[in-house]
Amino acid sequence: MTLDYERDPAAIYRQSFATIAAEADLSALPEAARPMAIRLIHACGMVDIATDLRVSEGAVEAGQAALARLGSETKGGGYPARAPGGAADLSDPKHSTNQDLRILPIFCDSEMVARGIIARALPGGATPIVTLNDPAVPDLAKRRGTTRSAAATELWRERLAGSIVAIGNAPTALFHLLEGLEQGWPRPALILGFPVGFVGAAESKQALAERPHGVPFVTLLGRRGGSAMAAAAVNALTLGLRGDGT
Amino acid sequence: MTLDYERDPAAIYRQSFATIAAEADLSALPEAARPMAIRLIHACGMVDIATDLRVSEGAVEAGQAALARLGSETKGGGYPARAPGGAADLSDPKHSTNQDLRILPIFCDSEMVARGIIARALPGGATPIVTLNDPAVPDLAKRRGTTRSAAATELWRERLAGSIVAIGNAPTALFHLLEGLEQGWPRPALILGFPVGFVGAAESKQALAERPHGVPFVTLLGRRGGSAMAAAAVNALTLGLRGDGT
Repeated sequence: MTLDYERDPAAIYRQSFATIAAEADLSALPEAARPMAIRLIHACGMVDIATDLRVSEGAVEAGQAALARLGSETKGGGYPARAPGGAADLSDPKHSTNQDLRILPIFCDSEMVARGIIARALPGGATPIVTLNDPAVPDLAKRRGTTRSAAATELWRERLAGSIVAIGNAPTALFHLLEGLEQGWPRPALILGFPVGFVGAAESKQALAERPHGVPFVTLLGRRGGSAMAAAAVNALTLGLRGDGT
Repeated sequence: MTLDYERDPAAIYRQSFATIAAEADLSALPEAARPMAIRLIHACGMVDIATDLRVSEGAVEAGQAALARLGSETKGGGYPARAPGGAADLSDPKHSTNQDLRILPIFCDSEMVARGIIARALPGGATPIVTLNDPAVPDLAKRRGTTRSAAATELWRERLAGSIVAIGNAPTALFHLLEGLEQGWPRPALILGFPVGFVGAAESKQALAERPHGVPFVTLLGRRGGSAMAAAAVNALTLGLRGDGT
């Protein structure tokens, strides 16, 4: 028995995106956000998430501009080495100012988000960073009386200016970041807010949409979300609707 | 401004699972599969997936037995070193027979699935293995006229007997595995089938549910699925409804 199914990666992408374009109503979204919406739908298999997507004005362009700025500055530039926990070494003195345009952190709240980002599509110097497993985090979480996911966002602070944030798991990470912004933390170029679940996910995304502290954002209201969507949102910034051949 | 939200990880898990238990109708599922169903719902934020879940008789028990068998045999046993591509070295002569009970491969079709598996909950010797980025895969895919995801499953074959398979991304990986089983590939202990999307996802899962070739399975019919669900299904085998404190 040979099963009858599409085996050509390019055709699979093409058919997927065509199906989504035919079924999803993207008319409420800004033109620039539609390829991202299609990739988000592709990542979860649900065309009806379009209704719950919220995209602040110019958000997709802001993310692309952050990546483009970097592209022109990275020749010969390095970025922080990765520590065993998967976190970049933020204490590297070479990178101690937020004005260093040779690197662009893409702060992710989980390893799954980071792994879903198609690394070869990123300009050199742009690097997914996960601080969740940094050795400092458990103590920090205890001191703050919060989750490890929330505490991990404090390690983003120094390099947050102009960065991209992709949250695909923990509502508390998004809540904590919003509290930080309220207290004057530097502003990322873009927040991609896709925490998922039953406790705080809907509320944290609502809070982002209502009070983004001047930060461009894309988010999905309600309980749905996840690391695949957060990663897909980043991939949309670099790939648009191009496939990645897997 | 301090936002009002739950910050205690244990309470978040407890409330999440309580909400799911209150809202989801799990009555059609075998008792042993209900904790897994709750974790799957938790991973995606949608209680209505319960309707589309299909669990073959004894599937959850089969996965747990595979892990338990291992647990009693792993003292002092090693498992294959990981090659740079993330794949275990399947050619290691110490592990050349399928009867080696000191290791249990958990074959994943993507790095995201592998990253979502809570490693510290696995018994020693059980290890997520991703062959997608193995250097042999691109050529193999060309020769077979299929995707890299499908070709990557051929590298599972030698150690497939008694393994756990977790597919959370590529329909072609599940299709190719089913074709292999039809041709007599060794049988895994359990297939967790959660490919997602618009081309082949629903069809591949339908094929699994209709013709599992004697392999216990858990799957979610339709377009929905994803790496978070595939990983959650594995985590349910080891953790049940216990939290992991992130």
